[in-house]
Amino acid sequence: MSNEFDRGGFTLPGEAGYEDLTLEIAEKWGADVIRDSDGTKLSPRIVEAGYRIYSTICVIREHNAFAEAHPDAQQQTFLISDAVLAEGEQVTIDPLAGYFDEQFQLNDSAEAIAYWQVWDRTAGEPVPRERWRYADGKITVTGCTPYHRYTASTLCWRIWEEINMYNHTTNHWTSEHLRQLDPRHPLAWEYLQGWLEEWCVANSQTDVVRLTSLFYNFVWIFGSDMRRRSRFVDWASYDFTVSPAALKAFEAEYGYALTAEDFINGGRLQATHRPPTAHKRDYMDFIQRFVAEKARALVEIIHRHGKQAYVFYDDSWVGMEPYGRYFSAIGFDGLIKCVFSGFECRLCAGADVPVHELRFHPYLFPVGLGGLPTFSEGGQPERDAMAYWLHVRRALARQPVERIGLGGYLHLTQGYPAFVDAIEMMGRQFRRLRALHEQGAPAALPIRVAVLHTWGGLRAWTLSGHFHETDANPLIHINEALSGLPVEVGFINFEQAARGALKDVDVVINAGFAGDAWSGGDAWRSPELVAELTRFVREGGAFIGVGEPSACPGGDTCLRMAHVLGVDVDDGSWACHAPWTFEVARQTPFAVLPESLGQMKNARLAAPDVQVLAARDGAPQMTLRRYGRGSAAWLSGFEYSPASARMLLELLIHLTGAQREAAGVCDDPRVEAAWFPASGTLVAMNNGDTPVRTEAALPGRRIPVALEAGEMRFIEA
Amino acid sequence: MSNEFDRGGFTLPGEAGYEDLTLEIAEKWGADVIRDSDGTKLSPRIVEAGYRIYSTICVIREHNAFAEAHPDAQQQTFLISDAVLAEGEQVTIDPLAGYFDEQFQLNDSAEAIAYWQVWDRTAGEPVPRERWRYADGKITVTGCTPYHRYTASTLCWRIWEEINMYNHTTNHWTSEHLRQLDPRHPLAWEYLQGWLEEWCVANSQTDVVRLTSLFYNFVWIFGSDMRRRSRFVDWASYDFTVSPAALKAFEAEYGYALTAEDFINGGRLQATHRPPTAHKRDYMDFIQRFVAEKARALVEIIHRHGKQAYVFYDDSWVGMEPYGRYFSAIGFDGLIKCVFSGFECRLCAGADVPVHELRFHPYLFPVGLGGLPTFSEGGQPERDAMAYWLHVRRALARQPVERIGLGGYLHLTQGYPAFVDAIEMMGRQFRRLRALHEQGAPAALPIRVAVLHTWGGLRAWTLSGHFHETDANPLIHINEALSGLPVEVGFINFEQAARGALKDVDVVINAGFAGDAWSGGDAWRSPELVAELTRFVREGGAFIGVGEPSACPGGDTCLRMAHVLGVDVDDGSWACHAPWTFEVARQTPFAVLPESLGQMKNARLAAPDVQVLAARDGAPQMTLRRYGRGSAAWLSGFEYSPASARMLLELLIHLTGAQREAAGVCDDPRVEAAWFPASGTLVAMNNGDTPVRTEAALPGRRIPVALEAGEMRFIEA
Repeated sequence: MSNEFDRGGFTLPGEAGYEDLTLEIAEKWGADVIRDSDGTKLSPRIVEAGYRIYSTICVIREHNAFAEAHPDAQQQTFLISDAVLAEGEQVTIDPLAGYFDEQFQLNDSAEAIAYWQVWDRTAGEPVPRERWRYADGKITVTGCTPYHRYTASTLCWRIWEEINMYNHTTNHWTSEHLRQLDPRHPLAWEYLQGWLEEWCVANSQTDVVRLTSLFYNFVWIFGSDMRRRSRFVDWASYDFTVSPAALKAFEAEYGYALTAEDFINGGRLQATHRPPTAHKRDYMDFIQRFVAEKARALVEIIHRHGKQAYVFYDDSWVGMEPYGRYFSAIGFDGLIKCVFSGFECRLCAGADVPVHELRFHPYLFPVGLGGLPTFSEGGQPERDAMAYWLHVRRALARQPVERIGLGGYLHLTQGYPAFVDAIEMMGRQFRRLRALHEQGAPAALPIRVAVLHTWGGLRAWTLSGHFHETDANPLIHINEALSGLPVEVGFINFEQAARGALKDVDVVINAGFAGDAWSGGDAWRSPELVAELTRFVREGGAFIGVGEPSACPGGDTCLRMAHVLGVDVDDGSWACHAPWTFEVARQTPFAVLPESLGQMKNARLAAPDVQVLAARDGAPQMTLRRYGRGSAAWLSGFEYSPASARMLLELLIHLTGAQREAAGVCDDPRVEAAWFPASGTLVAMNNGDTPVRTEAALPGRRIPVALEAGEMRFIEA
Repeated sequence: MSNEFDRGGFTLPGEAGYEDLTLEIAEKWGADVIRDSDGTKLSPRIVEAGYRIYSTICVIREHNAFAEAHPDAQQQTFLISDAVLAEGEQVTIDPLAGYFDEQFQLNDSAEAIAYWQVWDRTAGEPVPRERWRYADGKITVTGCTPYHRYTASTLCWRIWEEINMYNHTTNHWTSEHLRQLDPRHPLAWEYLQGWLEEWCVANSQTDVVRLTSLFYNFVWIFGSDMRRRSRFVDWASYDFTVSPAALKAFEAEYGYALTAEDFINGGRLQATHRPPTAHKRDYMDFIQRFVAEKARALVEIIHRHGKQAYVFYDDSWVGMEPYGRYFSAIGFDGLIKCVFSGFECRLCAGADVPVHELRFHPYLFPVGLGGLPTFSEGGQPERDAMAYWLHVRRALARQPVERIGLGGYLHLTQGYPAFVDAIEMMGRQFRRLRALHEQGAPAALPIRVAVLHTWGGLRAWTLSGHFHETDANPLIHINEALSGLPVEVGFINFEQAARGALKDVDVVINAGFAGDAWSGGDAWRSPELVAELTRFVREGGAFIGVGEPSACPGGDTCLRMAHVLGVDVDDGSWACHAPWTFEVARQTPFAVLPESLGQMKNARLAAPDVQVLAARDGAPQMTLRRYGRGSAAWLSGFEYSPASARMLLELLIHLTGAQREAAGVCDDPRVEAAWFPASGTLVAMNNGDTPVRTEAALPGRRIPVALEAGEMRFIEA
């Protein structure tokens, strides 16, 4: 490879005490930036070695002295107690029993208690304020109905910053518990701005302030019992943003008051996987504006000191969604995203910000997130890195980023030369891909895909966490497949779909389970939405449903798009009704992988003119149907693999009639390719573990492609 | 065996042309009654041979001449058309497209059209009458919203009696299609009474009029396409009772009008497996009273002629449920029930009527209901008969009936001597059991079980058809198991449970899936019900939930009894919430059969103090929990087998602490027993296919029990 791909766009985690190693690896990996990491420091020799320097700060953490002096500046949340059964007229509730007492502490100030609620959960009604009283950490409810169950929803202080708590409880850290400040608290906000000013002055060597990340952690609620330690974890929920001050400001602005139940929601909270209430939508917008306003103020301080502000999109990301309405107004200079998967690359690459940087995995830590060894006995970090790279490179072939990098303790790479070599290779390939993109975009098939769900663009590409945290949802598999396909991908919500967004779309995908945010739940009660999607297909569009798409009770079918799909799901209400019987097609228009489709035993044909491509135990797994001038497909499920991604591509081509020559699609399904017409280069990737010889279709010609197992090759053509 | 068990209580189907065979078999099987069957006749030699004679009549059928002269006296139903998509302002609907035109004919009389409805199914709204018109068999709808779907609900004549239609289309009958009359039609009713008078006069030899059965067939809707021939079949629905006259009478009595949609229900109709609307409840009571009134008039005619009236509970049974409020007022002398299963024996045996008679299977037909050969090449009728007998005998050991019998073409038994011998054996054993019951009831454990569901006693024992028609519901398996267990069994509905019925109950069982009539659906929104069941368990009762018991949206748990069971089911709304982890108990208090429990992947522990007896793929399959002074158990599913019936018995004993000695429970789980203390006889049944030597526990002693494979033995003890 030529020298131009040896260096640049690479952020190396440096480590004091390992100066030689740091500089040696920086050279080998072609780093142009050296950063510190959570738990590491840079020494003067590193800082002065001629690299640009990133310095990591977590704005709201590491201010324990201030937090102890101003405990009311800490962050909060609502929590619901266990339900207590009334056997007589009175019950006593211990509001935080069962929660981790190192994380939560009751906020029993008068202004907080004003927001507390007691509910009769059997009747489904709040208990009037005059029927409960609080004393000594307990709530006593009177006038109970015997054998009803009562809960208390209270505001609590969060007295341990959750990422620090995770590292202590998982990685056996023993340092002081870090607290977190709420920037909504006036004194805290004043303090944080001053602190950042001072920090910038004290860190003159820093070129880029790497914010990890902003203010409010994703919701992570620990239990006291190890059998339910991680009681609730949602990487995109807003519960941890709340406080009496926030509630008062909300009420002043919106003209109505939120209650504890708006957050508690019968004990379920409001997870991102579920459609939000109207109140939650309002609240999210309210918080997003607040986060953007405060973040902008911090960025301005950083800029004033001649530094750049990059934000690491993880941990305290709530309210700063990169596709949210206020993100670009913050003025960040860069967005850094850790990536296991292709969809995370696309999430980063598509954000409206000058610099996009990926932090590769594995993190340079002894063990990985799943608890298995990485850089320790039994670990094979080069194998892990390659596995992630196979996901990442196909997305990078579709859409570029400016930078990549790593994090953690660099000294751990010692003794893992295969890993060091692998990262060197990935750096070169990344730079080569980046150069291709600079010369001109890769060709795509003329297929514009819109993924349709509750959140639309706000949660483009991601559901609410990493792949392995959301992999029970077919949509994350669909997104992962799409991240490397030669098609245009957008994310729209139901309101947009009903109001004109389909005019720029060829294929709509709705993938989820009944009642979840991805399928859409009650959104499908809208006749406008259903009629518009029906029109879209009648007039030539394609609709792909996965799992229980458009499922919503109360219609004449369980799936509101059953009349288009020709498939319905029996939620039990089709009792005694026979479905249409079918035979599985002997010949399918493309290779169908039943093992990637899972099974829904209650799926059934709702129309006779449906082609069944796969079935199991009498239930269809994959169907096709012409509908008007358009077409529809239904899949019982979808699990990502390179082969199933190819199946999805073939389905998209089949539904739209697109010509595959436009994008260099290879004959062998194990090989994915990106065709860069401006530079006359075909990037061919063998996703399999054996060598492949195949051909790629290009406009007007075919070229041979020969790849080793796993190889990515740049073919001048 | 002694002679007293050789004869009596047996109804033989005689057949003209086979007089010798009839009388020979009558002797061998110990018949005291000879009957005709659908399609057979008795000859004078048979009639005069000294046996009592049953003659079968189907009151509303075989009056084609009258029906042709009075087509408006035929029965009717509502049907919904296929939905038609509007692409412009107007759609045309063919109301009966897709239905079997030999079964249905549009009733386009003015009084019928007044009840027709057109719906915009996309909007979920009826279309005003002025926006649709009917002409030439088609409905034209104007002012449509483009891309909305429209349906028409019409009243239709049913021009082919459904059982006759079934026999034609399944058994290749070629005779004239029989029509059916609606007794609500004044002329028809007058005609039918006169016809019955004449019939009684003309059939002086008949001792018992065997009514097959009353007026309204269960709902069976055929499609025109063989891929969906049997579109809807529900053995207990009321759609076929409707007519403008019925609707007018209903409105006059109830003060509100039913509409087509009360029957059509968005195209789903109102299947017995689903909770009924309040309107349907009213309508059912209305029809039950009508059926009872008309049936009573017919019975009185029969009685006036010195004959008895037995009713065969099948086919046209709608409105005459034996546990309905009006059944005993009809005055039937006997109830005949065909039985495949134990629950059907108990259904018959427990009805308030002087004589209970079982019609055994297999029916003497060349092929069985499932289409497999019985009395034809490849058939093994003796094996089939034994399989049914194993189900039936254990129920007969718990509760007696007076009579048994067979139906069909007797000549088919020629060449099947093993079958003839098997029936002889069953006749003897039946008589011996009957005699034991006459001396005194079998001992039961002190366990009163209440099966709790929407229908309560109205649908005691049965769901809505035979076992094989409803076997996807765990409750039918529970009922089948209970039918032979030494416990007291009752059936209660939710209103009864909430209002005092639990005072006579030790164990409540609720078994079904979310939203079905057996689990209960919206009934669980009642705080009174939940509180009362909670009280019941707290104070010492036991609650067994199977599948998704008490499932109902809108609560703080998905199962409204989750706080008692310690188990909940995740309908998706528990997204991001971790359940309690668990370990499966190493020792269980009784033998647990995971293969009988099925699996619910979304089941989860809702409390830490739950004992998990079985689990699969991380989800519990069976749990136990102490709750207050009582206890609860949850099973993911239940499939009947002799072994699982024993598991259920052991569970009941475990939950209640009952002493098994009271009822002669045998040590070996393959052996069931009934202990008749008055006659000092233990009836021991080996349900397995190998010999067993075991012991039975009796009050104060144990006795040895040795049985051959499949044997039922009467042991004096």
